[in-house]
Amino acid sequence: MALREDRVTMAHGGGGKAMRDLIAEVFAAVFQPPGMEDQARLMTEALQVPGARLALTTDSFVVAPMEFPGGDIGKIAVCGTVNDLAVGGARPLWLAAAFIIEEGTEIALLRRIAASMQREAEAAGVRIVTGDTKVVERGKGDGVFVTTTGVGVIAPGLDLRAEAIRPGDVAIVNGVLGDHGATILAARGDMALSTAIESDCAALGHLMQGVLAACPDLRAARDATRGGLASALNELAAAAGVGVVLEEDVLPLRAEVRGVCEILGLDPLYLANEGRLVVFVPEAAAEAVLAAMRAHPEGAGACVIGRAVADHPGMVVMRTPFGGTRIVDMLVGEQLPRIC
Amino acid sequence: MALREDRVTMAHGGGGKAMRDLIAEVFAAVFQPPGMEDQARLMTEALQVPGARLALTTDSFVVAPMEFPGGDIGKIAVCGTVNDLAVGGARPLWLAAAFIIEEGTEIALLRRIAASMQREAEAAGVRIVTGDTKVVERGKGDGVFVTTTGVGVIAPGLDLRAEAIRPGDVAIVNGVLGDHGATILAARGDMALSTAIESDCAALGHLMQGVLAACPDLRAARDATRGGLASALNELAAAAGVGVVLEEDVLPLRAEVRGVCEILGLDPLYLANEGRLVVFVPEAAAEAVLAAMRAHPEGAGACVIGRAVADHPGMVVMRTPFGGTRIVDMLVGEQLPRIC
Repeated sequence: MALREDRVTMAHGGGGKAMRDLIAEVFAAVFQPPGMEDQARLMTEALQVPGARLALTTDSFVVAPMEFPGGDIGKIAVCGTVNDLAVGGARPLWLAAAFIIEEGTEIALLRRIAASMQREAEAAGVRIVTGDTKVVERGKGDGVFVTTTGVGVIAPGLDLRAEAIRPGDVAIVNGVLGDHGATILAARGDMALSTAIESDCAALGHLMQGVLAACPDLRAARDATRGGLASALNELAAAAGVGVVLEEDVLPLRAEVRGVCEILGLDPLYLANEGRLVVFVPEAAAEAVLAAMRAHPEGAGACVIGRAVADHPGMVVMRTPFGGTRIVDMLVGEQLPRIC
Repeated sequence: MALREDRVTMAHGGGGKAMRDLIAEVFAAVFQPPGMEDQARLMTEALQVPGARLALTTDSFVVAPMEFPGGDIGKIAVCGTVNDLAVGGARPLWLAAAFIIEEGTEIALLRRIAASMQREAEAAGVRIVTGDTKVVERGKGDGVFVTTTGVGVIAPGLDLRAEAIRPGDVAIVNGVLGDHGATILAARGDMALSTAIESDCAALGHLMQGVLAACPDLRAARDATRGGLASALNELAAAAGVGVVLEEDVLPLRAEVRGVCEILGLDPLYLANEGRLVVFVPEAAAEAVLAAMRAHPEGAGACVIGRAVADHPGMVVMRTPFGGTRIVDMLVGEQLPRIC
């Protein structure tokens, strides 16, 4: 059964012995020692509680490079999908993982990615229960693409949605912004940038459970991934029909990230994050939510960044320390390709 | 909001306005007119029945060409995942769909794929409830890759598994074999083959429900996709610890498929199918299962192909019309790359 090849060949995608060996040894052995099922059959008491709902979300990950300071494509694939579930109010339970592998990819890289996924899944309290592999010819893919689909359970009565945001609600993020985007930029090497920044990639399921416990009337949460905080806030503002005002002088940004953005002419509000979310909460709950976030390592840098207002519905504006304001629009073109 | 571009650009993957427009217009508008959710929140009474279980399966699809006689990558992506659920005994309910799109792909092609997926989903009685799109640079992908993840419900007490197969059980398929593989071979054009064969691509959820109603003690079912019927039977035989004997003179094969295989030196038992399954049933139930299959268009060609035996456990053998036997082994290398 031992794989003798160092690199993936087309036979590893053919449906025969080579494929079974690849799946058994590289993926199933890591994700589920007794053997990952082709189809998972699952149940949890939480789903049988009257009023509970099932949450389903899927994301493909194509980040380049596949390995970078603070993470890799496998870690992002687990965290990103866990976070999608978490911001919807779901407790993440199970993941499916599908791999599209370019011929010639090092099997050692696949092993590192699988190990990283399993590590993150365990930390996040989810199980990778089923999967798939396909192989494409050299030049028809780019190393490994990972698609993770997550299933979770939303407790009865919990209904987080942008439409619940009211003027006066406070916007809180769980830490500094833009580290992931800046890390990928630097890791690509073509910018001759060298920084000590690491990706913020982290699973936020436990943090969100803490936030919900501290603030049962949480309005909405959103992870600030592709398109950054600016895009997340624009989506929320548009859906809620409220305006959002950010305070520039309290936005949490590392000096290194500011520096990268200044050199490259980028706005850190559009940089992708993989371990950051924004929540809107009633003002009276803000302190409790901040405390709940700070009780988790990935929420150590939690802070208030602004609030919802009745003015300029659907629009996000930034108030500068000098009293001016500028519109923070939805990203029009692309800022960074293949960021997640 | 109307897309003005004819082809996908990197901006369509950037997390900003271009991406929202692509998703809204090409995918969400087709899959779910009121707007596909980023995270689906779902419930069905079937899940709340005590003893019911949730089935979860995922598959990436990379078939080349993306469009071929009888189907396209979207149709395969829906049918393949529905069939994975169905052969596990689950009633398919919901699909998630993730698209990895190469820069330069025609938006008209994406629209055709989305329309095809929606058509198949409606016919199969499933809903495409959530999705994702990513864009990769030209030369880092190959048109469109689709990953579909399916969620279904397994009724209480139903537990199809290979281990349940007993010597004496009868093996039944729902129709002629190898049409999909032969179609893709011919469609690639590099074989100078021209045939009238169409892919067998079809969703088998309704057929499986009929089979289960006709035969409550169905042992196991398996779809015969990559690796063909031979690989499906080898997996079942190995897991069940039984031998399988096939009768060559009753194997359902079109003359055109036999012809393609003879010209190219291929064995039709290894050709992929996308609308064919094999079930093992107690002998007494065989007639009822055949009748149940034949009640569906995709089961019109149902027939018995062999049976499980106590001899040669784990091994599949073929009995020829002349009284000889040959071993039908697991596929070792690849037969056809990018078949699904």
